[in-house]
Amino acid sequence: MATAANSVTHPTLIQVDPFVPALQQKGLHNRWHPDIPPFATVKPGEVFNIECVDWTGAQIGNNDFSDDIRDVDLTSVHNLSGPIAVEGAEPGDCLVVDILDVKPFDKMPWGYTGIFELENGGGLFAQEFQSRAAKAIWDFEGVYATSRHIPGVRFAGVSHPGLIGTAPSHELLATWNKREVGLIEAHANAVPPVAYGPLVKGANVGQDLPGDVRQKIYREGARTIPGREHGGNCDIKNLSKGSRCYFPVFVKGANLSVGDLHFSQGDLSFCGAIEMAGIIKFKTSIIKGGVEKFALKQPIFLPSPVDPLYSAKLIFEGISVDIHGTGKQYNMDATVAYKQAALNAIAYLQKVCINEYLLLSAAPVESHVGAIVDSPNACVTLALPLGIFEHDILPKAEGLKKLDFGQCAIRSDGIL
Amino acid sequence: MATAANSVTHPTLIQVDPFVPALQQKGLHNRWHPDIPPFATVKPGEVFNIECVDWTGAQIGNNDFSDDIRDVDLTSVHNLSGPIAVEGAEPGDCLVVDILDVKPFDKMPWGYTGIFELENGGGLFAQEFQSRAAKAIWDFEGVYATSRHIPGVRFAGVSHPGLIGTAPSHELLATWNKREVGLIEAHANAVPPVAYGPLVKGANVGQDLPGDVRQKIYREGARTIPGREHGGNCDIKNLSKGSRCYFPVFVKGANLSVGDLHFSQGDLSFCGAIEMAGIIKFKTSIIKGGVEKFALKQPIFLPSPVDPLYSAKLIFEGISVDIHGTGKQYNMDATVAYKQAALNAIAYLQKVCINEYLLLSAAPVESHVGAIVDSPNACVTLALPLGIFEHDILPKAEGLKKLDFGQCAIRSDGIL
Amino acid sequence: MATAANSVTHPTLIQVDPFVPALQQKGLHNRWHPDIPPFATVKPGEVFNIECVDWTGAQIGNNDFSDDIRDVDLTSVHNLSGPIAVEGAEPGDCLVVDILDVKPFDKMPWGYTGIFELENGGGLFAQEFQSRAAKAIWDFEGVYATSRHIPGVRFAGVSHPGLIGTAPSHELLATWNKREVGLIEAHANAVPPVAYGPLVKGANVGQDLPGDVRQKIYREGARTIPGREHGGNCDIKNLSKGSRCYFPVFVKGANLSVGDLHFSQGDLSFCGAIEMAGIIKFKTSIIKGGVEKFALKQPIFLPSPVDPLYSAKLIFEGISVDIHGTGKQYNMDATVAYKQAALNAIAYLQKVCINEYLLLSAAPVESHVGAIVDSPNACVTLALPLGIFEHDILPKAEGLKKLDFGQCAIRSDGIL
Amino acid sequence: MATAANSVTHPTLIQVDPFVPALQQKGLHNRWHPDIPPFATVKPGEVFNIECVDWTGAQIGNNDFSDDIRDVDLTSVHNLSGPIAVEGAEPGDCLVVDILDVKPFDKMPWGYTGIFELENGGGLFAQEFQSRAAKAIWDFEGVYATSRHIPGVRFAGVSHPGLIGTAPSHELLATWNKREVGLIEAHANAVPPVAYGPLVKGANVGQDLPGDVRQKIYREGARTIPGREHGGNCDIKNLSKGSRCYFPVFVKGANLSVGDLHFSQGDLSFCGAIEMAGIIKFKTSIIKGGVEKFALKQPIFLPSPVDPLYSAKLIFEGISVDIHGTGKQYNMDATVAYKQAALNAIAYLQKVCINEYLLLSAAPVESHVGAIVDSPNACVTLALPLGIFEHDILPKAEGLKKLDFGQCAIRSDGIL
Repeated sequence: MATAANSVTHPTLIQVDPFVPALQQKGLHNRWHPDIPPFATVKPGEVFNIECVDWTGAQIGNNDFSDDIRDVDLTSVHNLSGPIAVEGAEPGDCLVVDILDVKPFDKMPWGYTGIFELENGGGLFAQEFQSRAAKAIWDFEGVYATSRHIPGVRFAGVSHPGLIGTAPSHELLATWNKREVGLIEAHANAVPPVAYGPLVKGANVGQDLPGDVRQKIYREGARTIPGREHGGNCDIKNLSKGSRCYFPVFVKGANLSVGDLHFSQGDLSFCGAIEMAGIIKFKTSIIKGGVEKFALKQPIFLPSPVDPLYSAKLIFEGISVDIHGTGKQYNMDATVAYKQAALNAIAYLQKVCINEYLLLSAAPVESHVGAIVDSPNACVTLALPLGIFEHDILPKAEGLKKLDFGQCAIRSDGIL
Repeated sequence: MATAANSVTHPTLIQVDPFVPALQQKGLHNRWHPDIPPFATVKPGEVFNIECVDWTGAQIGNNDFSDDIRDVDLTSVHNLSGPIAVEGAEPGDCLVVDILDVKPFDKMPWGYTGIFELENGGGLFAQEFQSRAAKAIWDFEGVYATSRHIPGVRFAGVSHPGLIGTAPSHELLATWNKREVGLIEAHANAVPPVAYGPLVKGANVGQDLPGDVRQKIYREGARTIPGREHGGNCDIKNLSKGSRCYFPVFVKGANLSVGDLHFSQGDLSFCGAIEMAGIIKFKTSIIKGGVEKFALKQPIFLPSPVDPLYSAKLIFEGISVDIHGTGKQYNMDATVAYKQAALNAIAYLQKVCINEYLLLSAAPVESHVGAIVDSPNACVTLALPLGIFEHDILPKAEGLKKLDFGQCAIRSDGIL
Repeated sequence: MATAANSVTHPTLIQVDPFVPALQQKGLHNRWHPDIPPFATVKPGEVFNIECVDWTGAQIGNNDFSDDIRDVDLTSVHNLSGPIAVEGAEPGDCLVVDILDVKPFDKMPWGYTGIFELENGGGLFAQEFQSRAAKAIWDFEGVYATSRHIPGVRFAGVSHPGLIGTAPSHELLATWNKREVGLIEAHANAVPPVAYGPLVKGANVGQDLPGDVRQKIYREGARTIPGREHGGNCDIKNLSKGSRCYFPVFVKGANLSVGDLHFSQGDLSFCGAIEMAGIIKFKTSIIKGGVEKFALKQPIFLPSPVDPLYSAKLIFEGISVDIHGTGKQYNMDATVAYKQAALNAIAYLQKVCINEYLLLSAAPVESHVGAIVDSPNACVTLALPLGIFEHDILPKAEGLKKLDFGQCAIRSDGIL
Repeated sequence: MATAANSVTHPTLIQVDPFVPALQQKGLHNRWHPDIPPFATVKPGEVFNIECVDWTGAQIGNNDFSDDIRDVDLTSVHNLSGPIAVEGAEPGDCLVVDILDVKPFDKMPWGYTGIFELENGGGLFAQEFQSRAAKAIWDFEGVYATSRHIPGVRFAGVSHPGLIGTAPSHELLATWNKREVGLIEAHANAVPPVAYGPLVKGANVGQDLPGDVRQKIYREGARTIPGREHGGNCDIKNLSKGSRCYFPVFVKGANLSVGDLHFSQGDLSFCGAIEMAGIIKFKTSIIKGGVEKFALKQPIFLPSPVDPLYSAKLIFEGISVDIHGTGKQYNMDATVAYKQAALNAIAYLQKVCINEYLLLSAAPVESHVGAIVDSPNACVTLALPLGIFEHDILPKAEGLKKLDFGQCAIRSDGIL
């Protein structure tokens, strides 16, 4: 007889409300620092859930305006759930993390893709496009996302945490701050800034801590924007539900934190993915001395068997020449090649659908680096899955057909 | 009754001998220039073969030494077969090229992967490693490659032309030369050079041409090293047999050239792929005005349904910090992130096999750009297919096991 | 600001408790009959959830005994949730059903695979093996299942409804009953029976209905065991979350019912899959006159892009000769060939793991019919994904290694 | 320097001309018998080629008529190349065969799909359709096949030997003949026959043998039509180039034979695949005592990583009821279910293209057996890859569109 007797629900170690500002909730922090104590502790082998607010901590609404994106407070992002200590983990060990599931809250079956304002956040093409804030709302229908702002597409999400990492040691933290502040100083007037140093304003540890500890963390804590040796904000789409990740451990307990859940993201983002609040399910184990055993300078991982499979693709090339602008020749610069491939894809998509840049930032596109040895041009490709479109977008002798979807999204400056 | 009556063999429009130096054969050229006349002409819809020497034009031998790599003459590479004119193609059209097959010569069932000497060719890590020439010979056994120099691995090739493109117009050629020579001048003392300008020495047009035409081509012809707007040396593994490619046309007839065939290459190359001589089968068609119809600034393509599928992978991350060297922080530099991911993979593989760098340069590894928006760190991943190894290389609690294969390859300086 | 304001949860149209017997709950029926009225009605385009008990209606427990399987009451299975009417659907239309998600209840993160007793249920090899009841409990850890009764394996589920269909018309129901009762009569003494006719005992409609209507349904209602023209108990693994199915409509409203959810099942089942209770998410639309438009004699469907991908497989062949028994030659009998392939797989797996038959009934194995034209032998293959095993099970020169897992599961007769 | 010196071509151990009748060539046999001596011998580890005529031995022409199919001499098929002895192989061993490549002759870049006449060969639906001979010619363009008789489709071949096996022992041969002759006698008047017993007429051993040996082989030799315990005519599409197969060995040397090459075939065939003459490349090894080590009653194999990947599919269901005919209920009969799925696919395809039955017999369709436990209905699915069609064939609200291709193929009775 089926009864609840032997039916043990997986415990939820951090609970949040996706509609309540992050600062009003416990267990959410937005800086990396070894002195943030564990919010919860697990044993190796336990299956447990962690709830996460969206990366902005409930700043963005489900509507047809993008003012909230324009005005987003970036000093307090990303709001991470944690830290979670794993019993027995010590510096030099490898923390094995099974990402067993990633899903939205039942009560919030939607997310968003946003483009920042040039002066507040920027993004991949902030300067090229003199970016104005824009937003698309996505509805989650089980494994699929659709958007009233990008009609004519539907795709399965490759859901993952945009941000996941172990806590740095004091030494590693110092290294980060030194090298990044150095970069900032070398590009003092950049808009948007080239990096973000420690900042007291907006800092949050999510726990009741003595004032001096708290202030130390505020002053020293590394910002969450970039990925680093511990993982962090890598935005790797294939670090998805079903993957197994091996992290280096830098502090006792490993102190894992996670947040910035994405319903979907490809290898391309102008700012963000399909951002969502939600629940992530974990299981951990420890390999003693794993850092040395596996030469682990950064995380490594095994991808998931359940990532979406769309075998038919249209692929765009890009080289490290500014072929969309001044024609400048760069020296083996994969970032430029990547941007050119993206611009080639945008130019094509502008002939077949609307809001192509928001689509490219959300869909499971893939970007491969071709071999970087053909001086001076790096070559990068961007592959667009054809199965996400309801109509055929292949090159035809008669040219491409743009469907008329009416006006569908509004930028912060009122332009479509 | 089966007879030869209706059995029409696909014609071979350019025939070469892979064991004869390129300069002694017709139909091979090694510069891009609009004044090189078509060596052959086809009608749209015809299926035809083109034979290609290896990219060095028979400079490399099947042996256990790497002197030939060390001393390779780079002024005369790549040796391309062509140009092939397609009847009816005009500037502004799109040339559709079906790459129907790519295979080695029956009489040469082997290829090689080489690492250049720092002072002659360089490569991805030329400076980091103070590269000495190295080489691995690969035996082609049908769809698979194996190597006596890298025992314990076997993989299916994703065979493709490393280099394929249409001829540039005079205007486009002038643009290329101007921007690249500018870059060279800005890095005058770089070793290896950042780019390679036009060079009379070693130039070849593969046809009998009037002396002044020939000299003009020698003086102006663009080198074949980088990929450019017309395609060229993009080294894209997925531009493989079975793919369909859409090229912009810049001159009457399109004047397609091809060479540098690879039995296999992943998204990573320290110098080259599994280089081979062989035969490529094509079919073409024309879409009038395709450049405008598809916003075609560079080639786009549909990948092949028969590329190898190895679903289980081990993935390495890299960020734009020199974590293997000085610790320098770069600003959103995908090239640095890519190199760090490669170094992370090398460090891991050094614990499980030999000649890991030659393996990574040859096998179907994949490198994805994560979203480049997380300032200041670009994040790039490198995925190693597990199915190519005869033994299990997954992370284990007991660590990794390096098999003892004895000495297997020799560098130019005599070091293993 | 993120608020609950525009956040609309998908409604749950049928709610059940997986730990309460099916007969005590509303909205569950276990016979097919056109006179069972809709329990709920939806409009095309709505996204909604349906909750389902496990197929036995809470008869099976999470423990290490299999008495409950041995004694299961099969007169009252399968317990289906529904019917759901879709506004506007009429006979002759095609009902398009998007299966958007299929997942277990949070409070019941486990399921089971059972083998029936010969005399109560039987199964694929009931007679060959003189089956005694057996059971394996599976724990659901996000996308994965593991079992304490089958150690050493872990695999991603291809979750699907084993049973989904539209209601039959009176005419269709009469056809079913006539042909099946005919078969039963022709095999009157078969153990287990060849089919199951209408049966008043155990029948359930899940709603308050007038007594005469209820009795008519009890007397005439088709049993749920086989798949039929309307879908039904097809046990197709790829009718999984993410798939889109096209059903013929036989009654006004279509009257869709669903149940018998599986966390996983391959193309092979000795009795059942990984059976679970859970929640299925749907969206429907109607194509008028679709039966004629698509020559729709049975459902057709598009599979999901998120089904697990395990590319490395070991494949077993089977032919229509009883090579494991009497050596009898059958005439192009795919059922025999399928069983022989399964027995070949079992014989192999007995050398590498325990409870191989329960594993084969649960894991995402695939069984292909080779071309049935090579008289007299049909040939069927069974493909076992290698990635589900924690250890290497490939054929080796040194033979296969069976891991010692201790005693792990108990049959109804006390034999391992 | 690249020279021919170390360039060793793979030897071709059996050479044939695809345009010369099989009986006029050496190394071709068409019966299974242990007394046929090896035609060639290899050492384990050698890579070698075997050339094969098409299965009919040059009986079918490249033209628009199907008389040759109607009149084909079936007493002399299949023409197999071999036997090949492997040094060291003994009864009870496992012969590992790497199928390294399968390709057509350069001089014969075409093949055919045929439907037999009811009275001469029959086929899957011979009786249902009262089959008249039909034929489609396929042109091989590298990895792809196209047909002037089935316009609008193009697909990559999954090339494989339809027929490959080791020689039977005398005991095994006797078993085959006994059980098959028994079946024939039990269905004495069947048209087409249910099986084909030994037949002196048309028998061929391909070598000069003493008259009495030859006559014994003629009298006893098993026909090549069905697959059996040694492999044989299994028509398994995934036993393709790149696969590794493990055969039981029954005689000293194993005596491998191969033939009936297919450029492509799916899991469905009405008669044959895309039949071709061509060249197969092998490498073998031996596992001593492998039959016992792997419980090897029939071959097992590892599929190829280079089989075509078409992820988007339309899937048809079939059950073991004759829903296209009398409505007869069968008892768990997968063969009937398979045929019903095929008929459902045919009915659909008749609305979108021509010669749908020839297409289904040639393209990489897949047929899965659903779990056979849902009495009395076996359920079988047939999956049609969408990427092989040049136009969209998905179900649409407006119905399906049949393109007008004109008359494209002629049956033996003059009907399209």
